[in-house]
Amino acid sequence: MVNVAILGFGKIGSGTFEFLQNNAEIIERKTGESFCVKHILDIRDFSGTPYADKVTNDIDKIISDPEVTIVAEMMGGSHPAYEYTMKALSAGKHVVSSNKEVVANFGDELLRVAEENGVRYLFEASVGGGIPIIRPMTNDLSGNDITEINGILNGTTNYILTQMFDYKKSFEDALAEAQEKGYAELDPTDDVMGKDACRKISILSALAYGISIHPDNVYTEGITKITADNVRHAAMMGASIKLIGHAEKNEDGSVFLMVSPLVVNGTSPLAHVSDVFNGIMVHGEPLGDVFFYGRGAGKEPTASAVVADIIDIVVHDGENLKATRWEKAPAEKIASIKDFRVSAYLYLDGVCCEKKVSDIFGEITLIEIADGKAAIVTAKMPEAELDAKIEQAKTAGITTLSKIRVL
Amino acid sequence: MVNVAILGFGKIGSGTFEFLQNNAEIIERKTGESFCVKHILDIRDFSGTPYADKVTNDIDKIISDPEVTIVAEMMGGSHPAYEYTMKALSAGKHVVSSNKEVVANFGDELLRVAEENGVRYLFEASVGGGIPIIRPMTNDLSGNDITEINGILNGTTNYILTQMFDYKKSFEDALAEAQEKGYAELDPTDDVMGKDACRKISILSALAYGISIHPDNVYTEGITKITADNVRHAAMMGASIKLIGHAEKNEDGSVFLMVSPLVVNGTSPLAHVSDVFNGIMVHGEPLGDVFFYGRGAGKEPTASAVVADIIDIVVHDGENLKATRWEKAPAEKIASIKDFRVSAYLYLDGVCCEKKVSDIFGEITLIEIADGKAAIVTAKMPEAELDAKIEQAKTAGITTLSKIRVL
Repeated sequence: MVNVAILGFGKIGSGTFEFLQNNAEIIERKTGESFCVKHILDIRDFSGTPYADKVTNDIDKIISDPEVTIVAEMMGGSHPAYEYTMKALSAGKHVVSSNKEVVANFGDELLRVAEENGVRYLFEASVGGGIPIIRPMTNDLSGNDITEINGILNGTTNYILTQMFDYKKSFEDALAEAQEKGYAELDPTDDVMGKDACRKISILSALAYGISIHPDNVYTEGITKITADNVRHAAMMGASIKLIGHAEKNEDGSVFLMVSPLVVNGTSPLAHVSDVFNGIMVHGEPLGDVFFYGRGAGKEPTASAVVADIIDIVVHDGENLKATRWEKAPAEKIASIKDFRVSAYLYLDGVCCEKKVSDIFGEITLIEIADGKAAIVTAKMPEAELDAKIEQAKTAGITTLSKIRVL
Repeated sequence: MVNVAILGFGKIGSGTFEFLQNNAEIIERKTGESFCVKHILDIRDFSGTPYADKVTNDIDKIISDPEVTIVAEMMGGSHPAYEYTMKALSAGKHVVSSNKEVVANFGDELLRVAEENGVRYLFEASVGGGIPIIRPMTNDLSGNDITEINGILNGTTNYILTQMFDYKKSFEDALAEAQEKGYAELDPTDDVMGKDACRKISILSALAYGISIHPDNVYTEGITKITADNVRHAAMMGASIKLIGHAEKNEDGSVFLMVSPLVVNGTSPLAHVSDVFNGIMVHGEPLGDVFFYGRGAGKEPTASAVVADIIDIVVHDGENLKATRWEKAPAEKIASIKDFRVSAYLYLDGVCCEKKVSDIFGEITLIEIADGKAAIVTAKMPEAELDAKIEQAKTAGITTLSKIRVL
């Protein structure tokens, strides 16, 4: 019998509880063990529910219970989740987590403490919901040189963008609908401004490159400025616009992270990730592209990932596992967006003719030119050079209405 | 230092050799070990090459070398690969394999012998080339109830179908081109008749359900009968036609396996798997759909999967792993295609009007009717009932030119 404590009994916490209960037979067949949720930490009142006798608001009751070997942290937010995780690991308990904020901000430290205490800190559920991505990157791709990651990591924004593309809704209408359906929070800032995706790409990048870049140091752009014109132009290109968490390793060993809306060509599987689904494309050498897709959020998928971590711990118990570790990236290893070579779709106003645009931007692909406005795609160049050209255009009377990078 | 023996120095064997060499630093960082390919088993003459001193045609030299702890079998074909695998496992050596034929036909026995000898038999490379699928199914989805698997598991046929759809080529022309490019063998029977895909879905199903159905007992249909009309009709439906390995579990616990061309709706990620890529959709409860995509064949991707298995063994060494096991399916657990509930696209000749067709087939969706021919999609019904209706149509003077099941 394996005793588990659940910290935070919200959607994912209760989903994990139900998963362990409903699929108990399958899990026991696979692991040879039965599982019991012995404690649930939550500050809310659950008296009168079937969980009442398990619920406590005292973390120390859990930490000091020697029967509890696995703690599942699904509280969300940095504090006190970080402190509780630290307590549990220091007390020699394994911790599994769905808390991307804690993993992205404190992963380096928590992984070190886990290793020092001979326990594991796993977080499959922190990225991509139910999609197996952390473990495949750790195990299956581990011999590869990961050169690039591009992920649709936030279901809310992907739902909004799908509505804008498939049903020609405005950003505002699509957001309102997402809120109505419960896909977006009442305060959607973390989602639509890209902060949620940023934490996730930060975690994937730390796994791939062994160095973590704090989300605050990642160039992050949301989807609030995308217009109906952008949607129309992308369709003309046979492309879609997706909010992408992007990580790449430069030849000098520095790592570049970014969250940004990107124009994604229709030939990429990423372009066909719709609604609240997530999709993550990883490029490894010599492997090539691999792509992972599934429900990136929600109670059941995320609980599935939490349970996978719990099973992993039990199945691999007593072994001398080579632990996952990463260190905080030193400043010189963090590449700046200024040096990022990118091609961009630009929507320009004040254009008399194509020549005037190409005189400034060089080689371009013209998507549309009408009524003094032009939609173009530039050649690849460093972001700083692109921005200088946009400034130059401005002095020549050409205003850039939209700039969306191209994947 | 971990000593590895490679059996079969073809594309995948040499790819594995090069991978271990070229990515040695990354692999050592992840595992804390260095790897040496000590022996290469091949009957060809490699004198004069850098490998000359490693090559042997004597399997017993490898089996009797106590320094060799991992044997990588990449010979292809059932014999003598099966016998060599058995020898290696019995001698207490771990075996990793890319040989789908051996895994599909003898997996139950080899997994048992591995467990009895306290070693592992891993075969990530046997399905989906470089796509992580075996390990995610074993680990990440292990708590889920897998209800259905649909996979594009053969790159050659997918390349041919892509050419037929995107460039309106005939099957024959597309096959000839695939052969020219080296994607198809000179004798393409195993690929185009679905035998290769059949071995792979048999392996995935054994993993998911714990019982293996021998490929000879799986309903298998190739892509040779797909015509330009079928391609045109699928496009009218906003769909594609893909060769799909399909597995599902019935409520009575029986398992149904099939390899067949299926009409795949454009909203499914499977519809967008092009060229030689593979894609595998797994439905788990409570997880929902997850989808894995990547290069399903080729030297580097397949070698990547072989190396992932080798790393897995080293990283998890000395632990008491709960081994993967499956048993041969008893006859009553193998569901017949006759009972499979399916909707189908039919192309019918000798049709005077829609009513005549719906009188026989019941509720239908009409795709096209012209010149006495009609393209329809039937409602879902057991395959036996569908075939009876097709017979009934025949007596009424309506010939079925094509029947392609719908996913």
